[in-house]
Amino acid sequence: MKHVVIVGGGFAGLYATRHLRGVDDVEITLLDQHNYHLFQPLLYQVATAALNPSDIAVPIRAIVRKQRNVSVLLGAATAVDVEKKLVIMEDGQLAYDYLVLATGATHSYFGHAEWERDAPGLKTIDDALEIRRRVLVAFEAAERETDPIRQKAWLTFVVIGAGPTGVELAGALSEIARQTMLRDFRRINPSSARVILIEGKERVLPVYPPDLSESAMKQLRGLGVEVLVNAQVTNISDRAVTIGSDIIETHTVLWGAGVQASPLAKSLGVPLDRAGRVIVEPALTIPGHPEVFVLGDLAAVAQSDGSFVPGVAPAAIQEGMHTALNLERAVGGQPLRPFRYRDKGSLATIGRAAGVADFGKLHLSGFIAWFAWLAIHIFFLIGFRNRFLVMTQWAWAYVTYQRGARLITGGVRPLLKE
Amino acid sequence: MKHVVIVGGGFAGLYATRHLRGVDDVEITLLDQHNYHLFQPLLYQVATAALNPSDIAVPIRAIVRKQRNVSVLLGAATAVDVEKKLVIMEDGQLAYDYLVLATGATHSYFGHAEWERDAPGLKTIDDALEIRRRVLVAFEAAERETDPIRQKAWLTFVVIGAGPTGVELAGALSEIARQTMLRDFRRINPSSARVILIEGKERVLPVYPPDLSESAMKQLRGLGVEVLVNAQVTNISDRAVTIGSDIIETHTVLWGAGVQASPLAKSLGVPLDRAGRVIVEPALTIPGHPEVFVLGDLAAVAQSDGSFVPGVAPAAIQEGMHTALNLERAVGGQPLRPFRYRDKGSLATIGRAAGVADFGKLHLSGFIAWFAWLAIHIFFLIGFRNRFLVMTQWAWAYVTYQRGARLITGGVRPLLKE
Repeated sequence: MKHVVIVGGGFAGLYATRHLRGVDDVEITLLDQHNYHLFQPLLYQVATAALNPSDIAVPIRAIVRKQRNVSVLLGAATAVDVEKKLVIMEDGQLAYDYLVLATGATHSYFGHAEWERDAPGLKTIDDALEIRRRVLVAFEAAERETDPIRQKAWLTFVVIGAGPTGVELAGALSEIARQTMLRDFRRINPSSARVILIEGKERVLPVYPPDLSESAMKQLRGLGVEVLVNAQVTNISDRAVTIGSDIIETHTVLWGAGVQASPLAKSLGVPLDRAGRVIVEPALTIPGHPEVFVLGDLAAVAQSDGSFVPGVAPAAIQEGMHTALNLERAVGGQPLRPFRYRDKGSLATIGRAAGVADFGKLHLSGFIAWFAWLAIHIFFLIGFRNRFLVMTQWAWAYVTYQRGARLITGGVRPLLKE
Repeated sequence: MKHVVIVGGGFAGLYATRHLRGVDDVEITLLDQHNYHLFQPLLYQVATAALNPSDIAVPIRAIVRKQRNVSVLLGAATAVDVEKKLVIMEDGQLAYDYLVLATGATHSYFGHAEWERDAPGLKTIDDALEIRRRVLVAFEAAERETDPIRQKAWLTFVVIGAGPTGVELAGALSEIARQTMLRDFRRINPSSARVILIEGKERVLPVYPPDLSESAMKQLRGLGVEVLVNAQVTNISDRAVTIGSDIIETHTVLWGAGVQASPLAKSLGVPLDRAGRVIVEPALTIPGHPEVFVLGDLAAVAQSDGSFVPGVAPAAIQEGMHTALNLERAVGGQPLRPFRYRDKGSLATIGRAAGVADFGKLHLSGFIAWFAWLAIHIFFLIGFRNRFLVMTQWAWAYVTYQRGARLITGGVRPLLKE
């Protein structure tokens, strides 16, 4: 009996676990610092009050309940001792025969850690609730403010980084202002709110083909988002975002720019790339330790054309499934197989009936891209109950323009005091 | 045009506001420290992971959107100056012609404010999420604990106070342990968890008729809850609850015992009762100030038989509607009408298919009481979307024994460190 420790219950770790179902020779311990698996592609929907946390997060225990070779532990890994084959936790340690590390990534502020306070990123449920709180409080503060200049600052929302998350957030914010909130206030006109999307590169969605970036830009502008490209943010405070000599007065800044691999990678003592990701071997193991697998956003996986596997959910899922297969082979004494990423296309949503899709030769925009995105995301959500509830809520939101989860939780005062 | 300030968007304040719809001679400002109206009777369902916050809370702005004589403000009132007719807020003030105070009640620890940290009560969404966090973390901590005595302490849950909230919480906790969590863990047996309900008086649900208390007690025991009556808690810490010479080792204590009216009452300068409630005149106004109305849990309303109107949702709703009528009369120069409470019966739920109902001569127990409770609560929920979603989630939970919102948010570590 071999003990497999899997650290991280995201897509990579969870799919590795599930695909070891029925393998008798292994005992699995799945360790995560949260008690839930998060369907991260829909997290921005929680941040923008369209969905509830529990619509996109499922208790890990509930998912693997019937898989008798798995124990789930709630706890945070702080380091790995690859020589002694130990995972070190804050309050204990776990010995392993095989290790699967899939702790993902967090935000990177490019050396400006002090920006985090005023420009939160979106990686966890708590991040999403904090963003929701700030956005909703901003409208409330604007309604209470009598000075027009200050009011304008409350009604200015800045999203930094025009990757898929930034684009989704900007589109959803503009919809909230222009449609959801439209008749809710008496003093302010929410549709006068500015939503500004800032990108350092020359186009939005820079990893997509240029024609789709172009289309995304048009759709964003159609939704009322102001898009600034080739714009380098030089400062962020609780009152303004600075781009060189331009100052945008705002109290609500969201960060969708950089990611940095989980710091656990460093303790492995193997080469990392610039983003802190572990440069893995073809079978997703680390140099010198074929019993240690690194997957998902924590891994830099080179492809035959010299590029790297992108940090997206389908890649993490494929890596998880592949690693389950390799673990079964390793336990059975067979050689590991190299991983190959199968790119099935990319989808990004921009807002109601707006999106882009890149399926290789087939490029889609607008309603059809949005609808494909919707169908695929509902399909991959874990749990029938969630699929049904999310579908219901989206249908409701589509018909009524309302967002069901517009609650300010976690306190109001810190932000209302200017 | 008269300016009516309504403080508090609970049942009393909201129903007062809504029933002033179409009254042309008034302008209403509805002030609340939260941006949502909370359907408080279902709050324990959020605390026990069955429902989401947004299922039972609706943005106040969305509710009164179409009522053009209402402005909603987010903010906390700190005092009232009845002479100058001003509501004082943390960051401003509001002048009124008529004032409706309906800021409700908070927990009372009977002079033991230090117990609050270890025995949180249930009044707000944030309270409910904190209780949910503690309950779910306790099971996780038990699973990680190897010492059997400590494990037992993590699996002991104490609810203090056997009024409706305490009974509901205890019943739901027992269900979580015995059904929802049943096969989720590998080391602990969740159904070995103890749920202890402590009541200082001689029976549970002391405001109900004795035969229903008796029935509730039996139903609680049928669900596996240990009930202690005539038990006076003498100390609460993060490790134990003390009742005289008995010590119950536990890390999870919930408070359902006392309530205390909102401190705003004191600033009125009128007589208060022992619970800090304003002793109001027959028309719910305060002595000497017929332009100041006090409603809901903030008011002590004497009835003709010498008893007081109970602090329940139907009473608050009736008071809100009555006050709207009186405000319209006052503005029109007509005399105020005294308030009379119409008791339509009481319902308490205990758990799955368990409950009691007191409709005067008709006393119901078990499934039929539970079903009546369910139907009435869904009917009174604000918003069709919520009614539909809550019904769906209850049906799902009833069939599967699962609770959809089992997420630990707001951090894990503070509690895991023993």
